[in-house]
Order: sequence, then C-alpha cells, then structure tokens
Amino acid sequence: MNIRIIAYVVGMALNIEAVLFALPLVTAVIYGDSLIPFIIPAVICLAIGIPFTRKKPKIGSLYSKEGFVSTGITWIAMSLTGMLPFMIDGAIPSAFDAFFETVSGFTTTGASILTDVEALSHSLLMWRSQMHWIGGMGILVFMLAMVPLSGGTQMNLMKAESPGPSISKLVPKAQDTARILYSIYAFLTLLTGIVLVLLKMPLFDAICISFGAAGTGGFSVLNSGCASYTMAQQAVITIAMIAFGVNFQFYYLLILKRFSIAFSMEEVKTYFMIIVGSIALITINLVCHNVYDSVGRAVHDASFHVGSIITTTGFATTDVNLWPNLSQGILVLLMFCGACAGSTGGGLKVSRAILLFKSYVREARAILHPGIIKKVHMDGKAVDEGVIRATGAYFFIYMVITAAAILLVSLDHLDWPTTFTAVIATFNNIGPGLGEVGTVGNYSGFSDFSKLILSGCMLIGRLEIFPIMLLFMKKTWTKF
Amino acid sequence: MNIRIIAYVVGMALNIEAVLFALPLVTAVIYGDSLIPFIIPAVICLAIGIPFTRKKPKIGSLYSKEGFVSTGITWIAMSLTGMLPFMIDGAIPSAFDAFFETVSGFTTTGASILTDVEALSHSLLMWRSQMHWIGGMGILVFMLAMVPLSGGTQMNLMKAESPGPSISKLVPKAQDTARILYSIYAFLTLLTGIVLVLLKMPLFDAICISFGAAGTGGFSVLNSGCASYTMAQQAVITIAMIAFGVNFQFYYLLILKRFSIAFSMEEVKTYFMIIVGSIALITINLVCHNVYDSVGRAVHDASFHVGSIITTTGFATTDVNLWPNLSQGILVLLMFCGACAGSTGGGLKVSRAILLFKSYVREARAILHPGIIKKVHMDGKAVDEGVIRATGAYFFIYMVITAAAILLVSLDHLDWPTTFTAVIATFNNIGPGLGEVGTVGNYSGFSDFSKLILSGCMLIGRLEIFPIMLLFMKKTWTKF
Repeated sequence: MNIRIIAYVVGMALNIEAVLFALPLVTAVIYGDSLIPFIIPAVICLAIGIPFTRKKPKIGSLYSKEGFVSTGITWIAMSLTGMLPFMIDGAIPSAFDAFFETVSGFTTTGASILTDVEALSHSLLMWRSQMHWIGGMGILVFMLAMVPLSGGTQMNLMKAESPGPSISKLVPKAQDTARILYSIYAFLTLLTGIVLVLLKMPLFDAICISFGAAGTGGFSVLNSGCASYTMAQQAVITIAMIAFGVNFQFYYLLILKRFSIAFSMEEVKTYFMIIVGSIALITINLVCHNVYDSVGRAVHDASFHVGSIITTTGFATTDVNLWPNLSQGILVLLMFCGACAGSTGGGLKVSRAILLFKSYVREARAILHPGIIKKVHMDGKAVDEGVIRATGAYFFIYMVITAAAILLVSLDHLDWPTTFTAVIATFNNIGPGLGEVGTVGNYSGFSDFSKLILSGCMLIGRLEIFPIMLLFMKKTWTKF
Repeated sequence: MNIRIIAYVVGMALNIEAVLFALPLVTAVIYGDSLIPFIIPAVICLAIGIPFTRKKPKIGSLYSKEGFVSTGITWIAMSLTGMLPFMIDGAIPSAFDAFFETVSGFTTTGASILTDVEALSHSLLMWRSQMHWIGGMGILVFMLAMVPLSGGTQMNLMKAESPGPSISKLVPKAQDTARILYSIYAFLTLLTGIVLVLLKMPLFDAICISFGAAGTGGFSVLNSGCASYTMAQQAVITIAMIAFGVNFQFYYLLILKRFSIAFSMEEVKTYFMIIVGSIALITINLVCHNVYDSVGRAVHDASFHVGSIITTTGFATTDVNLWPNLSQGILVLLMFCGACAGSTGGGLKVSRAILLFKSYVREARAILHPGIIKKVHMDGKAVDEGVIRATGAYFFIYMVITAAAILLVSLDHLDWPTTFTAVIATFNNIGPGLGEVGTVGNYSGFSDFSKLILSGCMLIGRLEIFPIMLLFMKKTWTKF
C-alpha cells in the first residue's frame, strides 16, 4: 500500500474543498450571514491539505487498490469537514445530524434531518446544494480535471469514484475525459439555471435547484419542496432531472455528431422506455383512483416523481403517501433501478439491470440448447465475462447490505414501510421514501445509531460498495 | 421438442396421483367421509394418464429441454386434478381458492385461504398433508424411484425438479439416487411420526404433522396451528423441520459412514450457523422487549419459528406480529435464504448464498490484486464458472419476479407488510408472512387475481423458475 499517494489525493481533495467554501462565503456576504462557519472549516481543510500535498509523489504507483482506498477516505474526510459549517453556525448542533446532512449532500441523496429548512441561513442552503453539485460528478473526477497529474494510472481514481459496471473512457487520457465530463456537466447546469430564471424563479432558488437537479441531489430551499414552483418551472425541473440521469457518453457522442451511435445506446433507450412506461402506469393508476381532477395534472405529477426517483434526485411536489399502492410500488422499484451508468444518478444503474437480464436469458437458452453458451452483447459488442461475473456479485452484496441495514434500522421500531424505504432511499441516494420519510417527511425521527447506519448507506451506495468495504478488509492493509 | 415423451411423463405422474388418492380414501372410510371427492379425480387422472402411457417411448430422447417442460406441465396438471376433491366435497367451492390451496399443498408452501381448517373432513385434511409429502421430495423423483425407465437421461427430470444450484448425484444412476433419497425421506418421516405418537399426539395429527414437517409444508389440522401441542411435541416438530432442511447428501454420507466428509459439508455447517445465530438474536430481542416471562420459553418459540421459516415449513405456535421489529426482520431474511439445496425446503438455498458471497469476495480481492482471478471453492472443490454465472442470473431473476409479483398483488390495496410478505412467503414456499397473512392469519383476504398470481409464485418458486418460465418462452416451442 502506497500511503503517500493516498495522503496526497486526500490532501488535494481537502484543498479543493477549502476553495469550494468560497461560494457560500460570497453568499454569506451578500445576505449578511456570519462568515465564521465557512472560514474555520476552510482553514482546517488547508491545515491538513497543504502539508499532505507539498511533495508530489509519482502518480505512476496509483494502482487499483490505492484508487479505491483514496476514494473511500477522501469522501469520509470531505464529509467530516463539510459538516462543520452546520455545527459552527448552530443550525444543526448534533454531530450525528450534521454528519448525516453532509453525507446526504455530497452523496447527492438529499435526505434531511431538518424539520424546518427555511430556518437555515442562505449561505448554509447554498453549501447544501453546492455539495450536491460537486458530489454528483465526483470530487476526484473534479480533481483530475483541475490538477495536472502525470502518469497513466489516474484512471484508477475515476474507476473507483464513477458509478456503473464498467467505466467508458471518452478519450484515451483520464484527465481529458474528466474535463469533457465536467464541461458538459457545467454547461447543462448553467442551462437549467438560466431557463429557471427566465421562468421567473428567484435567482437564489434557481442556483440551488440547478445544483440539486444536476447532481441528482434533492435538497430544496423551501419547506414545501418544489410544490410552490409554477407548473412550467416544475416541468423544466422534470426535464433537467431526467437529462442528468442520462449516460454522459450520450452527450459526448452528440457533440461529436455521432448521432446514430448515440441514439442506439441500449442503456439510454431502456432508461427512457422505463421512464415512459412508469409514467403511463402511474398516470392510469392515479386516474383510476381519482387522485387528481385532471389527467393533465396526473401526467405532470407522475412525470415529476418518476423523473425524480429514477434519477435518484428526490425532489417532490406532492405527498406520495396519498398515492395508491401500485404507484408507490413502482416508485420503490425505480429506487432500486436508478439511472444510467456514467450519469450523476445513483441506484443499481440501468446498464447493470440490462446485463443481469441478458445473462438470465442466456441461462434460460442454455437449458434449451445445452453446451451452447453465447456471449452477452451490449451495444453490439460482446461483454467481457469478468464484467458479468462482477455485476452478479455486486447485485448480491447490494441486496445483502440493504437487508443488513434494514435489520439494524428496525431497532428503532418505526413502521415497516418507513424502515424499509429509509434504507432503500439512502442506499440508492434518493432521499425521500414512504411513510415518515415520505416526500413531506424527514429523517429526524431516527435514533443517532440509525442516522449513522443510514449515513453509511449513503456513502456505500454513492461509491458503489467497494471503496468503503475495502477500508474494512484486513487484506487491504496487509502485504500480498 | 419430443411431445410423446412429455405426454408419457405427465401421464405417468397422473397415474401415480390416482394411486395416491388411496390414502385419503382409506381415511374417508375410517372416518365415514364421502368417497366421491376422491374417486372422481382418481378416475379422471387415469382417464388421461393411461392413454398417454400405453406406449413407452424411448427414454433416451429426454433432453434437458424436455425435462424442464415435462416438469412444469406435470406440476400444473397435478394441481388442476388435485384441487378437485376440495371442489367436489364443497369445502372450497371457488376454483381459484381450490387451485391456490392445492398448489400450496404440492409446492409445500402451506399458505391457506381457509379461515376454519377444522371444518374440513379428515380425508381432505389428510390429502392436504399428503400433497406436502409428495411435493417435498418431488413427484418426478418419486416416479423415477418407482417406474423402471431405461436410458441414461432421466437425470434431466431430476435436475428440473430438484432444488439447488447444481444437483449432486449420490450414485451414478438416477433411479438409484431417487430410491436412496426416498428411502431416507420415508424413514425420517416415519421416525418423526412414531416419536410424536409416543409423546401422545393423536395418530391422525401425528401423520399429518409428519407429512408437513417432512415436506417442509406447513398445513396443520387445527385452527390453532401447532400452538395447542405440548412443549415436548413442539420441540420434536422443531427438530424434525430443521432435519428435513438439511441436504440429504449429508444423511447418505452418514449411512456410508463417511462422517468426516459429512460433517465438513460447508452448506450444512453454514445452515446450522445461521439457525443458531438467528435463534440467539431473536431470543435476545424477545427477552429485551419482555415478550415472554421466561428465557426458556423465548428460546423455545424462537427455535420453533426460526426452524419453521428457514426450512420454509411455516408451522406456527404464536403470533409473530406481536414480536419486535428486529425479530420480524430476521424471519423475513430467513424467508429469502431458505434451507439447503438437496433438501425438501424452498427459498434461495444456503448453497446459493454461499456461492454468491464467495464470488463477491473474489471480486473484492480482484481489486486488490488485479489480474488474479482465483477459482471459487466449495467443499474443497473448484466450482464450475458456469454454475456461478447461472447462480448470479438466478438471483437477479428471482428478485425481479418477487418485485413484479409485489406490484401485481399491490392492486388489492392491503397494507405493505401484508402485500410484501405474502409474495415472499408464497414465492419461497413458506406459508405465513406478516400482517394479515401472519402466523394467525390466512390468504382469504386477497382477490381471485392475486390468488392466481400467488399460486404462480408458489409453482415458480418450488420449481426454481425455469420449468415454468420455459413454458412461456417462444424458443421452447420452435425448432432450433
């Protein structure tokens, strides 16, 4: 294990975090909030970060193991420092609560322990939403885009932090890939913000909501969530959420004008089919149960919530606890499914579901014609058996962690739908679930122990298990 | 597709079913019940079975495909004829209800739509429990043990009907393997019955309860389930249930006096570790919540229900809805886990869980040491990659079917714990779940549509998906 390179990566991430505090600081100046809650954490970040990054180690030695371990430690370190503004300000005095809220921010979950969001200062609200934006595409991907590193193994950092069964390099160099990703990301975020402002959303709200939609986060700045925005504004948020759940490779192919390849991406096609199918089913279900007066309104709300849940954003305009069972069930399934790999969304990812389904079909065919094992194909290319094997193992451990977390959180004796969906909604980085943690509820009813477990779920879910799990494996810390 | 051999297998199974009606007929004679409800179905079975089996086809052509298809059709045919006694007697007039109850019997689920079991005649109660016994080890395995078939491909029948990720032949010939399995099975059943009678259980109850415990069924003959039996009788039932959840290969190794191999079987060891761990956790949880006056009673009830659920039997002595959340959660997890492969229990099977877990550990290690992919070992032998791949695919489709069934059943608008556990408890062939389908409840509250879906879940679960799924695949019925 190369400890020096891990310290360098973590230190660099903390330096970047110190710089990121500039935006809430500016907000604090504009709105007359105290500057202290951001200055102290920034100083702490630099105090750790600068000594760690004074000497640049040879990046060539950043192997797979170091990539995963640095990613896990970086995210925990960012959360432990990122929670300080809430505690220093006094808005969230409990360390468990502040850690939960911060992890929820960086992991783009959007689950909150706050019962009154509007009581927060503007600068804290900005910090909450900014965490979504930086966590969405990833702090280490950001670092790769910004800091010139030499050597060819930076891809290991990106591999550990980026979601999906396999990472597709857009271009040969990791740094260029990171830059392209962040450029597309920044452009689409800016576009969302501008459209929202043109539709007369207040600038502050527009910035925060754009950050949330882009990172597929879900923190809002009003106690009513997104319910008080106009229908047009809600429609734009719906489109934005769905757009950020698309594999970014799709956008890159559009930029390159390789339209036919872009539009034949199986994952993207399936993603849109799931969205359209879910909206249709929920709309029919809502109309049959007379939940809404008009079909148009039913389509509008169904679209918003399907978009919000499949992309694991978690914005809400209504109380889905009032929806009929089938609609609730579909939303819970979408929580598991999640968005595309290579997007800012969480969950299992559409591409994993496709791979697993194709691999099931292959097994069924093997019964009909024993001895003939065909390769599984995706986008016309044969998928490496190692990826299929890893995906199966991933799905199993994903369900095991879900089950274990449900057991631990069940010690709080809340009702089953609350317990069950709280774990699903944090592990898949969504935010709201059903029952007490529904779209109009929050996570304040849980014990400190459960909040810690759920914080762990958010981190493990965002980093796709291995970067956090490896930290607790003995083999990671011993020689081969 | 060789239709003639499929017709032969299905016909032979129906002939056997006709003979099986002898036991309830004898019971009817003893208790003075009407004989008609069993004579008519027996005649129908023979009327279909005899013409199909007049000419013996060459068994050599029973390929994998035919094995799976005949298994699926046999089980559906047996259920459609096995439901007739309930309808002719008038005890269960609705066809949906009678089909549900019969499928529940053969698949050893033990879920009932009856609100008053004691209102059934003794002969019908006997038929219900006998279905458990025959379904537990499998009708086609029974057929292989009884009917001399020539050719070397009968293994394909056993493969399709027997649960588990891979079938272990005890001896080279399928017929001998089937005979050994049924001999062990009959001996252990008889032993259970004798011990229960010695402990002063009424003979009729002892026979039915032994059938249920042996097949890991769960139909009881009293409205109180097993609650009114003595503590000693309940303890024997606990031991019997757990014994029938053990891989039968273990018993065969004991008979061969190969003790060291038997006691080092990883699946059996893990199975007992899970049982002991679950009993300990539930007991602590029950004691902490003062559910019972004495620790002894808590251990007793925890053992009974852990044994009942992990083996997917479903007998009950108390209302688990009154247990604390953690205990309920552990029971639900055990529902998924299930018993050993090669036993009469259902669920995912312990060996699949072990394989999936080991394959996850392998992936985690591959991150630490890229390029080194070690074989997964089980009982000291390297596991075929095809089995691991198939297990991953199986687990995924298993969860997809669970999710789809939950959505369909949610149309009934029962509460979530009821809807969720009804599907889990039928798909894994357990019987009782939580809420309205809890240990003191039943399935009468569901619509006919849901009863049909849940009946399908029981069949798909018992036959481990493929024999039923293949019936609905176009490729099964077309030429290669």
